[in-house]
Amino acid sequence: MAARRMTLVFDLDGTLVDSVYQHVVAWHHALLEAGIELSIWRIHRRIGMSGGLFTRALLRETGREFDPELLERLRHAHAEAYNRLSGDVQPLPGAVALLARLTAIGCPWGIATSGRMETAAPVIAKLGVPEGVPIITRDMVAHAKPDPDLFLAAIDRLGVEPGEVYVVGDSVWDLLAARRAGTLGIGLLSGGYGTEELERAGAYRVYDDPAMLLAHLDELGVREG
Amino acid sequence: MAARRMTLVFDLDGTLVDSVYQHVVAWHHALLEAGIELSIWRIHRRIGMSGGLFTRALLRETGREFDPELLERLRHAHAEAYNRLSGDVQPLPGAVALLARLTAIGCPWGIATSGRMETAAPVIAKLGVPEGVPIITRDMVAHAKPDPDLFLAAIDRLGVEPGEVYVVGDSVWDLLAARRAGTLGIGLLSGGYGTEELERAGAYRVYDDPAMLLAHLDELGVREG
Repeated sequence: MAARRMTLVFDLDGTLVDSVYQHVVAWHHALLEAGIELSIWRIHRRIGMSGGLFTRALLRETGREFDPELLERLRHAHAEAYNRLSGDVQPLPGAVALLARLTAIGCPWGIATSGRMETAAPVIAKLGVPEGVPIITRDMVAHAKPDPDLFLAAIDRLGVEPGEVYVVGDSVWDLLAARRAGTLGIGLLSGGYGTEELERAGAYRVYDDPAMLLAHLDELGVREG
Repeated sequence: MAARRMTLVFDLDGTLVDSVYQHVVAWHHALLEAGIELSIWRIHRRIGMSGGLFTRALLRETGREFDPELLERLRHAHAEAYNRLSGDVQPLPGAVALLARLTAIGCPWGIATSGRMETAAPVIAKLGVPEGVPIITRDMVAHAKPDPDLFLAAIDRLGVEPGEVYVVGDSVWDLLAARRAGTLGIGLLSGGYGTEELERAGAYRVYDDPAMLLAHLDELGVREG
């Protein structure tokens, strides 16, 4: 019997790069500009969903009608505000070392993000991703998280079965999508959620950040070979 | 036997005004400028402590020595970055209505914040605080949260006993300080922490925000008279 090999699929914002809070503050600014007052913690709790679902959910909470023109305006205002703040965005502690370690031991991995390639590309560049690693963005699938499409596309590109995959994410939406994709979800606290929120969404294990995940790879049966 | 009357003492940032995320992003910017790389979620989890304790804790986590000159420089850089973001700061939903309701029914209340008067004054102005309401800031006590000094000073000014007081706050540090002051702590999710974190720090009840607290005043035995 061949040893079971595990594969890792990573979310991006809050999981590999420290960008969640800048996205949250940028969305708040964009909504306020459009006259939509919404508490920032509620935006934080929706981040990581697809932008369309996210905006629909927020508009519902504020009792406004969904309007594609407004959605486009919000997206644009968010991108502008985020760009002003994104100079401070860094890889999370251990992210670069973790990915390098996986590559070195021959453990396959990929990235699947609800963001679009235009915002994701500059931060992915800071991670030192080797050629051939699958990177799935919002532009490439019909539905983003909590639908499983992004993770399923990455799994398909990696040529493995869902049961051999850990999905690593910082938000409840990552963990819910991981379950729908038939994978095990690993939660990271680096997006600013509490341990219990992630466990209740089905996290198999919860670590602080990529550095702590790297230090515990043996717990997950991720090994050379 | 006279009916037991309850008094409320409120934290400010994240409890009455929606300013936690701007403070977090501003501290991250200030630390980065000083060459100190620290994940933003770790800053979030320390916010609400006294600035001195906060900086000591962060420097300890990054293995740096505490240095009063550096602390002063960080404080200054934080205030500058926060001022750029603070135009977006609004009272939290229900905050103004809750305070007005307490005043209308003759329930005494006060505010106790780890912030300094210079940053607190502009947001307090947006809350419509009547004259005579005690406002205790960092400048007025020896030790800030999680020490109980701020809450004890407010209780003293209100002329009540700690056992007759609910302290309302959004962070673990508020709830720990509330217990050391001999009061009951009420947690609000509006600072971006999870329910379980607040419960584990001793919250007697947890509500979403001031609007939800206002709708549940009867649960707390806060009533006219």
